[in-house]
Amino acid sequence: MIIVLKPQATSEHADQLIQQIAALGLRPLHMPGSERVVIGALGDERVLEQLHLDGHPMVESVKPILAPYKLVAREMHPADTVVSLGGVDVGGERIAVIAGPCAVESREQLRLTARAVVDAGAQAIRGGAFKPRTSPYSFQGLGHEGLEILKAVSEELGVPTLTEVVDVADVELVDRYADGFQAGARNMQNFRLLQALGQSRKPVVLKRGMAARIDDLLLAAEYILAEGNPHVILCERGIQTFETATRNTLDLSAVPAIKARSHLPVLVDPSHGTGVREYVAPMSKAAIACGADGLLIEVHHDPRTALSDGKQSLFPDQFAALMQELVGFAHAAGRTL
Amino acid sequence: MIIVLKPQATSEHADQLIQQIAALGLRPLHMPGSERVVIGALGDERVLEQLHLDGHPMVESVKPILAPYKLVAREMHPADTVVSLGGVDVGGERIAVIAGPCAVESREQLRLTARAVVDAGAQAIRGGAFKPRTSPYSFQGLGHEGLEILKAVSEELGVPTLTEVVDVADVELVDRYADGFQAGARNMQNFRLLQALGQSRKPVVLKRGMAARIDDLLLAAEYILAEGNPHVILCERGIQTFETATRNTLDLSAVPAIKARSHLPVLVDPSHGTGVREYVAPMSKAAIACGADGLLIEVHHDPRTALSDGKQSLFPDQFAALMQELVGFAHAAGRTL
Amino acid sequence: MIIVLKPQATSEHADQLIQQIAALGLRPLHMPGSERVVIGALGDERVLEQLHLDGHPMVESVKPILAPYKLVAREMHPADTVVSLGGVDVGGERIAVIAGPCAVESREQLRLTARAVVDAGAQAIRGGAFKPRTSPYSFQGLGHEGLEILKAVSEELGVPTLTEVVDVADVELVDRYADGFQAGARNMQNFRLLQALGQSRKPVVLKRGMAARIDDLLLAAEYILAEGNPHVILCERGIQTFETATRNTLDLSAVPAIKARSHLPVLVDPSHGTGVREYVAPMSKAAIACGADGLLIEVHHDPRTALSDGKQSLFPDQFAALMQELVGFAHAAGRTL
Amino acid sequence: MIIVLKPQATSEHADQLIQQIAALGLRPLHMPGSERVVIGALGDERVLEQLHLDGHPMVESVKPILAPYKLVAREMHPADTVVSLGGVDVGGERIAVIAGPCAVESREQLRLTARAVVDAGAQAIRGGAFKPRTSPYSFQGLGHEGLEILKAVSEELGVPTLTEVVDVADVELVDRYADGFQAGARNMQNFRLLQALGQSRKPVVLKRGMAARIDDLLLAAEYILAEGNPHVILCERGIQTFETATRNTLDLSAVPAIKARSHLPVLVDPSHGTGVREYVAPMSKAAIACGADGLLIEVHHDPRTALSDGKQSLFPDQFAALMQELVGFAHAAGRTL
Repeated sequence: MIIVLKPQATSEHADQLIQQIAALGLRPLHMPGSERVVIGALGDERVLEQLHLDGHPMVESVKPILAPYKLVAREMHPADTVVSLGGVDVGGERIAVIAGPCAVESREQLRLTARAVVDAGAQAIRGGAFKPRTSPYSFQGLGHEGLEILKAVSEELGVPTLTEVVDVADVELVDRYADGFQAGARNMQNFRLLQALGQSRKPVVLKRGMAARIDDLLLAAEYILAEGNPHVILCERGIQTFETATRNTLDLSAVPAIKARSHLPVLVDPSHGTGVREYVAPMSKAAIACGADGLLIEVHHDPRTALSDGKQSLFPDQFAALMQELVGFAHAAGRTL
Repeated sequence: MIIVLKPQATSEHADQLIQQIAALGLRPLHMPGSERVVIGALGDERVLEQLHLDGHPMVESVKPILAPYKLVAREMHPADTVVSLGGVDVGGERIAVIAGPCAVESREQLRLTARAVVDAGAQAIRGGAFKPRTSPYSFQGLGHEGLEILKAVSEELGVPTLTEVVDVADVELVDRYADGFQAGARNMQNFRLLQALGQSRKPVVLKRGMAARIDDLLLAAEYILAEGNPHVILCERGIQTFETATRNTLDLSAVPAIKARSHLPVLVDPSHGTGVREYVAPMSKAAIACGADGLLIEVHHDPRTALSDGKQSLFPDQFAALMQELVGFAHAAGRTL
Repeated sequence: MIIVLKPQATSEHADQLIQQIAALGLRPLHMPGSERVVIGALGDERVLEQLHLDGHPMVESVKPILAPYKLVAREMHPADTVVSLGGVDVGGERIAVIAGPCAVESREQLRLTARAVVDAGAQAIRGGAFKPRTSPYSFQGLGHEGLEILKAVSEELGVPTLTEVVDVADVELVDRYADGFQAGARNMQNFRLLQALGQSRKPVVLKRGMAARIDDLLLAAEYILAEGNPHVILCERGIQTFETATRNTLDLSAVPAIKARSHLPVLVDPSHGTGVREYVAPMSKAAIACGADGLLIEVHHDPRTALSDGKQSLFPDQFAALMQELVGFAHAAGRTL
Repeated sequence: MIIVLKPQATSEHADQLIQQIAALGLRPLHMPGSERVVIGALGDERVLEQLHLDGHPMVESVKPILAPYKLVAREMHPADTVVSLGGVDVGGERIAVIAGPCAVESREQLRLTARAVVDAGAQAIRGGAFKPRTSPYSFQGLGHEGLEILKAVSEELGVPTLTEVVDVADVELVDRYADGFQAGARNMQNFRLLQALGQSRKPVVLKRGMAARIDDLLLAAEYILAEGNPHVILCERGIQTFETATRNTLDLSAVPAIKARSHLPVLVDPSHGTGVREYVAPMSKAAIACGADGLLIEVHHDPRTALSDGKQSLFPDQFAALMQELVGFAHAAGRTL
């Protein structure tokens, strides 16, 4: 850690800080410059956090050298992690495609949609029973009934399922019905929920928050791993920017940036990432091209009647065409589909 | 609501949509232009949401005319709402100042800090027992013990308290110890928590999320009011932007923008809004100048030892000086302090 | 255009506005709702701009129906435009790759770098003679001498060149030496420069500004076409967001979003878009996968000695390897390389 | 400067870098940690820039210790600078208010508006003759004729003027007619224009770009001072964010953040900063409260007919009322108006 003192700091201030650093068992280094005094501290920076140096009135800035996360870091775990979602590997050679409606609306709707996406090659189905909606007047999901439908259709088709959990109180319930948890963008820093998911052993798809830097996402994942659940899949789904042509700005450079920092697998959600049906196919191809391990795509058997996110949901035949087109990109990326 | 059809839409598409609108009891209006067909729908737009027109493949865009919220809207409730936080009015003539440490760290720490801020003129004290922290390795708060300390100091000094709640499971517990709930920026769209707070009758300070538009904040507040709790205080605390000289970008224009749209009182938190001790005083003054109803300020009896947010916490004498300086600005704004 | 009046507007206000619209030759439509009066105006919205309705105190909002640009719009010109950069087609079946150093530093440097990129398959070379630099103390380019070097190397290798122009006064000079102009991100709204480039007949690569919405970019291009130069190539190069893991956030969804709105070809610059050497290859592949017509890539014969942007410049062997890898993605996209 | 090496860097890499630093006359410091080797370099960091260390493949990151600007820095020049705009001091005890229309539209329009704002207490008038407009189809200003009108009205009323210059070619012309130059947000990084303004001796109001960090703004100002013109006034006018309730997000915390870093005076433009007439008054008050040295406000004698920015222009009586209300805030801030 590099501690830059303010111009008005005296050598007494510097000495005092150096002693505090040494007292923690770290090796302090004094670098008296012509315009600033700089103090270096070598060793575990997480120990140094106890000194709360950034609250000190004579400290101008504190620059960490190491990343603030440990368990998710590639540095500690160089090989790629593969997470199994009910038997579907995410992070291996094969691109994982998880598709389905935004929300479970009825048994008929889920069955029609799920059959279509599985026939087209999707390996797992998604569908929300608990929907976090911006407005209290919008459809909020079928809840428990939605989970039952999800499980029934999953068993009928023999494919695993992924569904969102929005509250600690539902973790156990969702655990009984689904093969994987989704922690949504709005809950990326619901740390209590992350801790509860960390106590499960089922895989968790953790979506990047709309205002989250990549380091924030990795620290959120660290919460889950720190509780003992290593089965975490990260998901880029767009960040909040000034652009209005798309619902969010899909930050695909997050894929190589995460891969450089972490061993965890990465999905891309081009449906929320763009919010526009027509852009889902090109961004799915781009996601695979830049190294994503899989896709999370919204499909509805009839988007004109969808109770949520119809604007960004693919028609079944659009999804089937996309799956065909993806093959070439997967091969170019050295993967299979 | 204004529905713009795509250039390739036929008159059959338009007729079909017009019939759907009429079937919902709204009055449709056909505006066939030279380049686009536009359909207007007069009446309650929230009914129209059931048609999910934005999922229709022939619809280019849907432009609502009315705001999506109702209970929080000034249009429905022109007079300013005054919310009582344990006897301290927020939204009336007097500027409300709520101050205290980021986190309750010990009885001694809270007592020293609280006494200092109350002596300087703060009307209520703040202090977190449950802390949502970006890193799992940071101090997470004292929990139940922190609440006990908060209540004891509150009774000792005879001032009300505000504290954060981060999970539905804690709502009842916090309710027993504090005079007001704070729903933090990271939980602004934790809709389950908002609903639980809507079932309480204690005031809720709802902080704007870092990626939340003003309309998103008002819809989040609508969740609380829709459950029956009208005692909501909004709080601007900075949004996520590219600027790095401050921790967040404090969006003070949100104050008049909220006041134009809603009758609810508005606080400003210049501590999180800037993240820099030296900027807290100028931004506190600016907040009062542009119409805020109060301030939420972090003070620590010794920021050099603070377990969190020391960098943005005021020293007690800085807070006392600020309270003196604020008087003139409050008067200029036609308020008292 | 849809004009929504404020709640307090009277029917006199509405009548007056309707008459003004009719007087301009447009067809007004009165839509008196229960909560708002809405006025529609059918016809050329650009005529309606003369009324400056958004300055009217009784107007709540003005919602245009048509896009504000005309010449760049796909609606007016459905087929893709192909622009020739000194004989290299941009926007056709073949992916165009333009590569070279950030800045021309010396004849030796440009020759070494240019030979390497041309050998690897680049079709044109880039290199700045006039460099817009954030700091006045950074290297500002070789100016006229840089243009001479560029032309000499171009002739030696038989490939066309692209170089940045930063001021109206240099347009004529640059025109004599280069095959195409680049208008940089910082000059995207230097309208005087755009007009001057519109009077040339050489192709212009127009880079998206760091705070520019896609519609702003298209309006900037409209400036060039409106002056008579149809040879415009758009370039996505990253926007300014809160993310700090990359220099900018490369908005690849801009590629399909531009293609939906405009007939102009689109390049992607993954070097500035990410600012990190290691992310240039994955984002180049992603750019081709989502439909970009070409790439603008920074390569330096020895990035360790580069006078600018060394951090994001590829080594020659990295570029050569990338060109090999791109072939499969170009084929999957139905293109050649 | 702190140079962090990648984990795979060897001691040979470190030694080589240390020698390069020493060869430049700086003092290198070797800090071999358990997980990273860190190298410090003490002395003028601007010299170190020549090494272009961030392009080195074994360098993980480069962290500067000193600010990249010199002439604008408060550290080099602790006292506040006062700039005279045609006799009106900006940066002294008195708050400077510069008001007038967005664009000069006619002699009648400017005379009516200017008289109103001067009668209300404005000390200087503003008005654009060259207008940078997003669309080529919008009113672009009267050009030379607009400058003549501006000068005539200025002489008639005996007040100085401020007007925008958008191109190097116009600097001399504008210099003949106006008392101060405005470099607009879209030209903040038009470095050629900044250099030309640096060769003038008239004051320059430099507006912050919509994607510019505070450090970028200060570096842009450094361009002007480095050419020999010390008469620079900075202006906060809003940055580009995701919020749509306002045209831009006015970043008032930039005022104390600039004051901490620089000795230059700071204006605030609440008209462009919000884009909404009703928010101009509250944000003007807030600007003074947080330490701004003055205001730049758009007023039009009849905003309903304004050829540009009517939505954000005050009516003359609104401006007069605001000037009255500002007095109390100026006094509270220890200033006069």
